[in-house]
Amino acid sequence: MAYQDSFDIHSRGRGTTEITAQVERIARAAAVATGIAHVFVLHTSCSLVLTENADPSVRRDLETLAARWAPDADPAYQHDCEGDDDMAAHGRSIVAGVSVTVPVSNGALRLGTWQGIYLWEHRTIAHRRRVVVTIVG
Amino acid sequence: MAYQDSFDIHSRGRGTTEITAQVERIARAAAVATGIAHVFVLHTSCSLVLTENADPSVRRDLETLAARWAPDADPAYQHDCEGDDDMAAHGRSIVAGVSVTVPVSNGALRLGTWQGIYLWEHRTIAHRRRVVVTIVG
Amino acid sequence: MAYQDSFDIHSRGRGTTEITAQVERIARAAAVATGIAHVFVLHTSCSLVLTENADPSVRRDLETLAARWAPDADPAYQHDCEGDDDMAAHGRSIVAGVSVTVPVSNGALRLGTWQGIYLWEHRTIAHRRRVVVTIVG
Repeated sequence: MAYQDSFDIHSRGRGTTEITAQVERIARAAAVATGIAHVFVLHTSCSLVLTENADPSVRRDLETLAARWAPDADPAYQHDCEGDDDMAAHGRSIVAGVSVTVPVSNGALRLGTWQGIYLWEHRTIAHRRRVVVTIVG
Repeated sequence: MAYQDSFDIHSRGRGTTEITAQVERIARAAAVATGIAHVFVLHTSCSLVLTENADPSVRRDLETLAARWAPDADPAYQHDCEGDDDMAAHGRSIVAGVSVTVPVSNGALRLGTWQGIYLWEHRTIAHRRRVVVTIVG
Repeated sequence: MAYQDSFDIHSRGRGTTEITAQVERIARAAAVATGIAHVFVLHTSCSLVLTENADPSVRRDLETLAARWAPDADPAYQHDCEGDDDMAAHGRSIVAGVSVTVPVSNGALRLGTWQGIYLWEHRTIAHRRRVVVTIVG
């Protein structure tokens, strides 16, 4: 039987918020020895990613790259009803994705030493983002 | 016990086709209360993506961005045996991915209000694309 | 009950190594008739991808595209403690991802004819990479 729980993150605009601890708590509560943890965000203008958890400059540089993958205020965009960052956010959510899936071993997340799970807000203003975690074993 | 079913989409060349309803039908048929729905396409020149389901201009703008992520007819490509859009399609399938995984809650897909599941054809001519859906709970 | 196993790949620096056979062996050992195979790499500077398994020029061209998605030695990067390819590798791992999930049917991987699973090393020097495979049914 799968176990599912959810939580909200209040982003403060564009940037990353680590959510490894919240996902780990749900994985442990599931009491599933071996399986997978699926982490999903119910939105199309932010992402969930796995990336380096040691040096914060990695996440700053990801922002630099994202500005090339899907720039703000691009004159080629037709969709800009919510502002200059609207379509950029949808584009970045495609490149970086809206879910991550991690192995569960011995009842806990099995992450590499340097892997953290991050909510990456792509909109410039603060948003409430709902994250759904499902543990299947 | 997992539940699995598949269906074909006849794309009309480059562009998106919404498949949320087909995936939802399979998720409900599975009779799994809590779990995940894995949606997978058996090809390397199209994608499955989750994106905004309200304004079609979002998907047109994604096409604009994809033309930068992996342009057609790039002189740097070595692989062009099926035409100018051949390698562009493989490159886009890496950026946007070939599968999506969505939570299942109360026997149905748990998507955000604005999230739809789309087959994104990257080849310029029409193709038949097979989609496999697996529900695990 | 989920089945899990892992193996190491010794990459020889930037480039792809096919791991379909290793994942297939684990999928068969799991003796799960219907389900999903989740393949995950415990690092943030390489990727796991599904791409064309026929013409090796596809994977060479992916390298050409990746050099645009996240170039080496970009003067805008702040993070370069491990060299010119350090941040490029983290950026590429976001674009191409660190896991793939494939359907399991009749106790075996259900891949399209032209789909192979590849470890894509983004660092220029050789690394040992640990891959964890979980079969859930």
